[in-house]
Amino acid sequence: MPPTGQMRSIILDVDTGIDDAWALVYAAQSPILNLMGVTTVFGNADLDRTTRNTLAVLDLLHRETPVFRGADRPLIRPWGGPVPEYHGHNGLGDAPVPGPKRRSEPLDAAHYIRAAVRKHPGEVTLVMVARLTNLARALLYDPGLAPLIERVVLMGGAAFCPGNVTPVAEANIWGDPEAADLIFQSNIPITMVGLDVTMQAPFTKDQLERLDPNRPYASLLRQATAFYMAAYELGNPSIQGWCPLHDPLAVAVAEDPSLVKTQRYPVRVETHGRWTDGMTVVDARQPHQGCIEVATQLDGPRFLRTFHQRIGVMSS
Amino acid sequence: MPPTGQMRSIILDVDTGIDDAWALVYAAQSPILNLMGVTTVFGNADLDRTTRNTLAVLDLLHRETPVFRGADRPLIRPWGGPVPEYHGHNGLGDAPVPGPKRRSEPLDAAHYIRAAVRKHPGEVTLVMVARLTNLARALLYDPGLAPLIERVVLMGGAAFCPGNVTPVAEANIWGDPEAADLIFQSNIPITMVGLDVTMQAPFTKDQLERLDPNRPYASLLRQATAFYMAAYELGNPSIQGWCPLHDPLAVAVAEDPSLVKTQRYPVRVETHGRWTDGMTVVDARQPHQGCIEVATQLDGPRFLRTFHQRIGVMSS
Repeated sequence: MPPTGQMRSIILDVDTGIDDAWALVYAAQSPILNLMGVTTVFGNADLDRTTRNTLAVLDLLHRETPVFRGADRPLIRPWGGPVPEYHGHNGLGDAPVPGPKRRSEPLDAAHYIRAAVRKHPGEVTLVMVARLTNLARALLYDPGLAPLIERVVLMGGAAFCPGNVTPVAEANIWGDPEAADLIFQSNIPITMVGLDVTMQAPFTKDQLERLDPNRPYASLLRQATAFYMAAYELGNPSIQGWCPLHDPLAVAVAEDPSLVKTQRYPVRVETHGRWTDGMTVVDARQPHQGCIEVATQLDGPRFLRTFHQRIGVMSS
Repeated sequence: MPPTGQMRSIILDVDTGIDDAWALVYAAQSPILNLMGVTTVFGNADLDRTTRNTLAVLDLLHRETPVFRGADRPLIRPWGGPVPEYHGHNGLGDAPVPGPKRRSEPLDAAHYIRAAVRKHPGEVTLVMVARLTNLARALLYDPGLAPLIERVVLMGGAAFCPGNVTPVAEANIWGDPEAADLIFQSNIPITMVGLDVTMQAPFTKDQLERLDPNRPYASLLRQATAFYMAAYELGNPSIQGWCPLHDPLAVAVAEDPSLVKTQRYPVRVETHGRWTDGMTVVDARQPHQGCIEVATQLDGPRFLRTFHQRIGVMSS
């Protein structure tokens, strides 16, 4: 990775999604990240909705970043459906989403990823905060792409902590484990921003209430995030009055790798387990092996300071 | 479990095996445990050898505890073979094992377990320090047995630490995962003494050298244990000059449950994984659920003090 503070070009892959929306806000307003394009995928909602939500959020940010529609289902297995419990039926907590002012680009997300990386070899960081299907499709079509990708920073997996879909699996990996395993095997340098660190990045109700109402996305995302927090309260007795900032944290780590401590480990994804499907299987017996940097510790205060400042949480 | 310090009857299931030999020494000399019988199973070596070794160690201890031969292979899958790297070709580090003075009983181990539990309902603790095949066979034949078993204390599994056969699987569970999962599902109260605690119970070369030469087992087990320590040194860069006391620790916990801190969790065993076969899948999101007490912390000094005293490690 380029050193902290140096400009870098990213493609952000999302399934917007409430925390994806914050990831878009965080990335679009970054002083360091050049957000080349945004790719969309099924996941928190279906592909039509995640694409529409992505365009709507970029509209609110007055950004014309091109948006590329990608996969509407996993690589191999059937899609199990969206997760309305956490993201609402429309993917944004059933808050009213303004109709987007433009359409997504005609190019498929996998084709765009391929074209962008081929055009700027060694220069593009892929920030993947959803199922890894789009990148897997690009790599299956063009295996020579892998060594040209600067790095993948992904929100996904659970190394040394419980999962959130099953006792051992995190949603983005579990949602397309074949795609994830393909990418973990690809020799691309990967930073895995998993639940080990994202669960250490809370956004509280009190902070949400202090969101600057003059921000153009404030009304939509305040309502959406309140839904998300209520969903966590219902689903997790240990999470009351806050939600984790999964996806924005991956963007933040792409912008400033020093926010997390990482350790390299061999990692495979279980694709055949009865109880372990979608688990990121970390070989903790072999630190310093492989090309996957597993984020194990977060500088929470520093991340949250930047997050609040950037999205517009006013001082209490 | 009966409170600490109260007499209790156990059946000890072994695949002797170097640390199994120490488990036999520890159990046979316990002031609290009534060692009703010993059952044998394939594992560290084949069933003939594990049975012969068990008889030989009891001979050296001048004990006439009945020994029952059990399964010579896993419940469902073929046996992968012994582990001569750790236990030698004869199961006791290739040390010369004296010919046993007696034979095993004619009764099969599974039949014996069933008969003993039926005769003493609610009174027998099963201490299982090998593959769980014998107990699984008894339960499959007689499902009504489960509620009559006082408790199973087993050496096996890895809850919050790496495995020793694969990144996530421990040998006793991995060696017959179908049997293990059957027992984890049986509603029998289980204490899981896994690698989380057994790796915290080191036996050092220095302590081994101070083993009282007048103990009748000293010569055999000094040689066997030196082999075991050398095997660990070869196989594990982080283990130099010691070996873990896996099996004796399970016996010690059966004798004195207060040696470990435990936490109840739902646990299943993966039997279909590509990377996770034989993993004890602990649902850490649900503490206080289920009937499996997972040992998470060991009072190492207290265990080691008792172990040294009982087996005859002289003061330095």
